[in-house]
Amino acid sequence: MAHGFTLKIHQTHHTIADFEKIQEYILEVLDNPTKGLHLFPELYLTGYPLQDLLLQQSFIEKYKIMLEQINEHSLGLKLDESKALLLGGLNYTFDEKGLPLKIENVIFELIPGKSLKKIYTKRLLPNYDIFDEKKYFTPGDECGVWKFQDKNIALMICEDMWPSNAHPLDPAYDIQLLLQKKKLDLDLIINLSASPYHLGKGEKRIKRGSEISGSLGAPFVYINRVGGEDEILFDGRSFLVNEDELIWEGKLFEADISELPLPDKKAPKYKLDDTSVLENTWESLFNPQLIKSGASHPILKPLDDVDCARTLAALKFGIREYARKSGINKFLVALSGGIDSTLVLTIVKLCLEEGQELEALFMPGYYTVPASFDLSEKLCKNLNIPLKILPIKFLHTSIRNAFNDSLSTPLEGLADENIQSRLRGALLYSRSNQAGSLVFNTSNKSELAVGYSTQYGDSVGALSVLGDLFKSEVFNLAGYINKKYNNLIPEEILLRPPSAELREDQFDEQTLPAYEILDGILEGLLSYRLSPKNLITLGFPREDVEKTFNLYQKVEFKRFQFCPIIKVKPKSFGFGYRIPICKERF
Amino acid sequence: MAHGFTLKIHQTHHTIADFEKIQEYILEVLDNPTKGLHLFPELYLTGYPLQDLLLQQSFIEKYKIMLEQINEHSLGLKLDESKALLLGGLNYTFDEKGLPLKIENVIFELIPGKSLKKIYTKRLLPNYDIFDEKKYFTPGDECGVWKFQDKNIALMICEDMWPSNAHPLDPAYDIQLLLQKKKLDLDLIINLSASPYHLGKGEKRIKRGSEISGSLGAPFVYINRVGGEDEILFDGRSFLVNEDELIWEGKLFEADISELPLPDKKAPKYKLDDTSVLENTWESLFNPQLIKSGASHPILKPLDDVDCARTLAALKFGIREYARKSGINKFLVALSGGIDSTLVLTIVKLCLEEGQELEALFMPGYYTVPASFDLSEKLCKNLNIPLKILPIKFLHTSIRNAFNDSLSTPLEGLADENIQSRLRGALLYSRSNQAGSLVFNTSNKSELAVGYSTQYGDSVGALSVLGDLFKSEVFNLAGYINKKYNNLIPEEILLRPPSAELREDQFDEQTLPAYEILDGILEGLLSYRLSPKNLITLGFPREDVEKTFNLYQKVEFKRFQFCPIIKVKPKSFGFGYRIPICKERF
Repeated sequence: MAHGFTLKIHQTHHTIADFEKIQEYILEVLDNPTKGLHLFPELYLTGYPLQDLLLQQSFIEKYKIMLEQINEHSLGLKLDESKALLLGGLNYTFDEKGLPLKIENVIFELIPGKSLKKIYTKRLLPNYDIFDEKKYFTPGDECGVWKFQDKNIALMICEDMWPSNAHPLDPAYDIQLLLQKKKLDLDLIINLSASPYHLGKGEKRIKRGSEISGSLGAPFVYINRVGGEDEILFDGRSFLVNEDELIWEGKLFEADISELPLPDKKAPKYKLDDTSVLENTWESLFNPQLIKSGASHPILKPLDDVDCARTLAALKFGIREYARKSGINKFLVALSGGIDSTLVLTIVKLCLEEGQELEALFMPGYYTVPASFDLSEKLCKNLNIPLKILPIKFLHTSIRNAFNDSLSTPLEGLADENIQSRLRGALLYSRSNQAGSLVFNTSNKSELAVGYSTQYGDSVGALSVLGDLFKSEVFNLAGYINKKYNNLIPEEILLRPPSAELREDQFDEQTLPAYEILDGILEGLLSYRLSPKNLITLGFPREDVEKTFNLYQKVEFKRFQFCPIIKVKPKSFGFGYRIPICKERF
Repeated sequence: MAHGFTLKIHQTHHTIADFEKIQEYILEVLDNPTKGLHLFPELYLTGYPLQDLLLQQSFIEKYKIMLEQINEHSLGLKLDESKALLLGGLNYTFDEKGLPLKIENVIFELIPGKSLKKIYTKRLLPNYDIFDEKKYFTPGDECGVWKFQDKNIALMICEDMWPSNAHPLDPAYDIQLLLQKKKLDLDLIINLSASPYHLGKGEKRIKRGSEISGSLGAPFVYINRVGGEDEILFDGRSFLVNEDELIWEGKLFEADISELPLPDKKAPKYKLDDTSVLENTWESLFNPQLIKSGASHPILKPLDDVDCARTLAALKFGIREYARKSGINKFLVALSGGIDSTLVLTIVKLCLEEGQELEALFMPGYYTVPASFDLSEKLCKNLNIPLKILPIKFLHTSIRNAFNDSLSTPLEGLADENIQSRLRGALLYSRSNQAGSLVFNTSNKSELAVGYSTQYGDSVGALSVLGDLFKSEVFNLAGYINKKYNNLIPEEILLRPPSAELREDQFDEQTLPAYEILDGILEGLLSYRLSPKNLITLGFPREDVEKTFNLYQKVEFKRFQFCPIIKVKPKSFGFGYRIPICKERF
C-alpha cells in the first residue's frame, strides 16, 4: 500500500518580521520539485513572539505585501495538488476603516497554483507566565480536520495539545467527536508549534504527542520553531510519533529540514472523554505535594550531566542568536577571577564562530587578591582569549579624593564598595564603545533573587547568560565543562569561596546563607511560589528562610532594570515574572 | 420621601498587600456609627495591580487570615442591616489539594453581624496595554443586581462599564434585560473601580457614567482608587452622576471620604441595544481618521494650562507615592543646566513634605559651558535647594590616561562621550549611597524613543519623572510652572538650545530632527502606531520620518533596562509597551 505522500519538515526560522527572507524561502519551497506535505512552525510567516509589533501599521503593511506577493507567485504556477505547504501565520480581519477587528493565529494551506487559504485557527491561547496570547489573538471555534490526497488530517497549533483547567475545552476531544459523528478515520495529526525551551520540555512534548496519537489512532507529527528571541529560545526538536513509537526526532537548537514517509496508522488504544483535562494548570506553579509530603529539602535537584549538556547547548544557542540578530561579532566579558565571569567567558568562547572575537577585561582594585589575577590569566591562556587589564585602584582613589575635596564627605561602607563595581561597569562599557563589542552580563539567578549585585555595576550587560541558573547550578555546569573539555577552567576557580572583593576579606557567605541552602529556598519561593512557612515546614532553617525572603522582597527595583536573561528553566526572572516593586513586605 | 440611605464614598487606598492597615480601616468602618452604604474601590482588600503576587502562597496565606479576622469581628457585632460595606476583593476557589482553581475579582457585601459575602464577579476583564487581567482572573457570568433596604442596585466593577469589541458582552445591556424580565425599577448603579490615570480619562469616565445612568434610569456612583503603584497612578476623582447632572466629584490624587444622599432616580432617557458597543477597541490605538483626513501635522497638541496643571499634579503624586512606599525621605537629582533636569528638580521640590530633603548634584566636565553652572546655581537659589558640585574633568582625564596606558587605545568619539555620562551616573549613585537618597531620572519621552541617552549614564534612576512627556511638552510644563510660580525657573534655561555637552559645541538638533517635528512623528508612531508611510502622507518630512523610525527601532535594548516611568498619557513606554528587542528593522 502506497502511503500517498511524504512529510517534509521545515524546522527552521527567520528573524522576527524578516519578510524578505521568509518570502524567499517559501517561494523556493513552492518552486522546488518535492511533492507531499511541507510543514512549517507556528507563525512561520511573521516570527514569534511578536508582542505589540503585530499592532503596528508598518508591520501590517509589510506583512500584507508579502502575502500578496506569495499569492501572486503561486497563482503563476501550474496547479499541483500533490503538494501543499502548511504555514503558520497571522490572519487579520479589518473593519471598514481598515482597523484590525480581530487577529487570529492560523494555519494557511498553500497549493502551487492557488492562493493562501486559512484552514485552521488556534483554539487554545496560552496566557500564563511568558505567554500573553489572549492579549492579541481571537481563538478559533472550529475543529481542525482537513483533507489532503484523500487522507484525513487533524490540525492543531501548539497549545491546542495542552488542555487544562485554564482552557474551556480539549481540541483533541472535539476532533474525536467529529470523527465519530462523520464516521471518519484519521490518517495523521499535525501540530505546528512555537514552543519555548526549558529543561525537560522536549520529553513532555513527546509523551503528550504519543498520548494524542494513541487516543485518536493516527501518527502525530510536531513541527517546532528553532531560534532565539531575546530571552526565549525555541529548541526545534520536532518529532514524529506513532502511538508509543518515536519514529523521528529533529535536531536540538538547530535547523533541520527532513523528509519522512507517512507511517501507517494504528487502531486507537483508548478514548478521550470530556473530562480529560491534563492537570491543574496551577500545579506546576504551586506543587503542594512538596509541602504535604513533609519531605526534607533539597527542593533543588543538582544538574546532572544530561541536564548540563542541554543547558550548555541552550546557552550557546541563546548567545549566538542574540549576537547574530544584533549584527555584532565582537564580544566582551569582565573577568573577576570568580566562577560566574569564568563560566560566562568559557561559554562565549565555546560559541565563537569564524570571524568572531572575544576579549576579557580584568579590572583589579584594592581588594582584588593576587589569585584572582593569576587565575584569570590562566583561564584566558586555556581559552586562548586576549586578557586586557585596566586597574581601577588609582581611579578609585581619585573618586575618593573627589568626594573628600568637593563634597567634604568620605566614601565609606556600601558607597565605597559600590563605586568600585559601578566604575568597572562604566569602564567595561567604554571598552565596549571603543571596540564595538557586545557585553555579556555575568550575574546568576541567586544574586538576582537576593539583590547581591550592584545596580549599574556588575549587573550591566546586553544579555544575561547565567541569570536563569542558581549559583550551585553554575558550579554544576562549570564542573561538567571541565569534565567534557579537559579542565578548561582552572580547578582552583571552582574551589575558591565566592567573593565580591569590594572590601577586605569579603565572602558571600558572610551576608547570605550557604548557597546550597539559599538556592533550595529560592527554588521553593520562585518555582513553587512557596511561603516562608511552607519552606520552614520542609526543613529549611527558619533564620535562612526569613533572611532570604526579606532580601528577595526588597530588590524588585533591581530586577526591573536588568537585561534579558536566556531562559533555560520552567520558571525564570524576566517577562514571565511580574511582581510590583512597591508593596508591603511580609 | 425618604431616600432610605446615605452613600459613604471611601476614595482611598493602602499599599499593595498592606493587610494590617486594610483590616484596621475596615474594622473601624464596621464599628463606627455611620449607617448606609459604604463604598470602596475595586480590589480594596488587596490593592491593585497585584500581578503574580496573587499566586504566591505567602500572599494567599496573609489574605485568608485577614478575611477570617474581618469575619470574626463582624460576627461579634450586633446584626445591623441598615449598614453595608461593599468591598472590592479577590475570591479564590481552591481544589482539593489547596491549589487555586480560579481567582475572581469580586464585590463582597459586609453587613455588621454577618460574614463577608460575594455578591458580584467582574464580567469584563481588561487585557490590553497595561492590563493583564485575563492572565489571572476568571470572569463572572452573572448580572449584578443586588438589593439593599428595598432598593434595587446594579453592580459593576471598572471595565464592566466599557463594552467594546474586545469583549463578548455589555453588562449594562444585560442589566436592562434582567430589569425588564423581572419588572424591576433600578434605584442606583454602583461601579467600584481601580482605573489608572491618564490625561483626559476623568472626563471620559463621567461621560460614560452619565450615559449608563441615562439608559438604565438611575443615579450612577463611581468609586475609584487613589494611589501610585510603580508606574501607574490611580487618580481617585470618584463621582456621582444622575443622567446629565454631575452631582458630586471627588478629589484628584487625594483621598476623599465623602457622604452623599442617594439622589432620586429619573426615568430612562433611552434604551441600550445589544449592539451598543462603544467603539472599535483598536480605534484609540490606530486612529485612521488622521491618515484619511489628510490633515497636516501636528498630531501632537501642545499641553495647555489645564493639561499642565493635571500633569503637574500627577507627577507630584507619583513622586510622593513612590517615595512614601520606598520609605525614603531624601532625594537626589543630577543637574546639568538643561531643561529636563531643571524641571525634574523643580517638580520634586514642589513635592517636598515636612522632614524631606532634596539635593542637586552638578558634575561639570570639559564640555560644560559656564552658563550651565550659572543657571544651575540660579535655579537652586530660586528653589532653595543645596547644590553640590563634583567636577569630573580630572576623573575623565584619569580614565582617558588609563585607557592610553593600560589598553594603549585612546578613548575617542562615542566612547569618550559616553564615559562622561556613565562616570556621572556612577558618581550620582555614590552620592545616593552616601546620603541614603532616592535618585530621580531626568530622561524625557523623546530621548527614550530615539535612544538619545547613555545607558547606565544619564538614563539611571529609580523612577522616571518625565519619561512620559515629549521634549516639547517638557517645555510646555516648565513654561506653565513659571507662570504659576513666578518664574521659579530661570528663563534662560527655557531658551537655551538643548545639548548633551559631551563634546565641543554639541546640540541635540545636529543629530535629531527639530523637537517640534520629532515629537509629532513620535506621537504618531507610538500612540497611533502609524507607519512611516502614514506619517509622510500626513506631511512630515520624509527624511525626518525615516531617521526617527530608524533610531526608534534600534534602541529597544535601552528601553528594556529603563526604570519605571510615571504614566500620564494614554500610551506610554513601560509595562503597556511590549516590543521585541531582536527583530528585522524596516
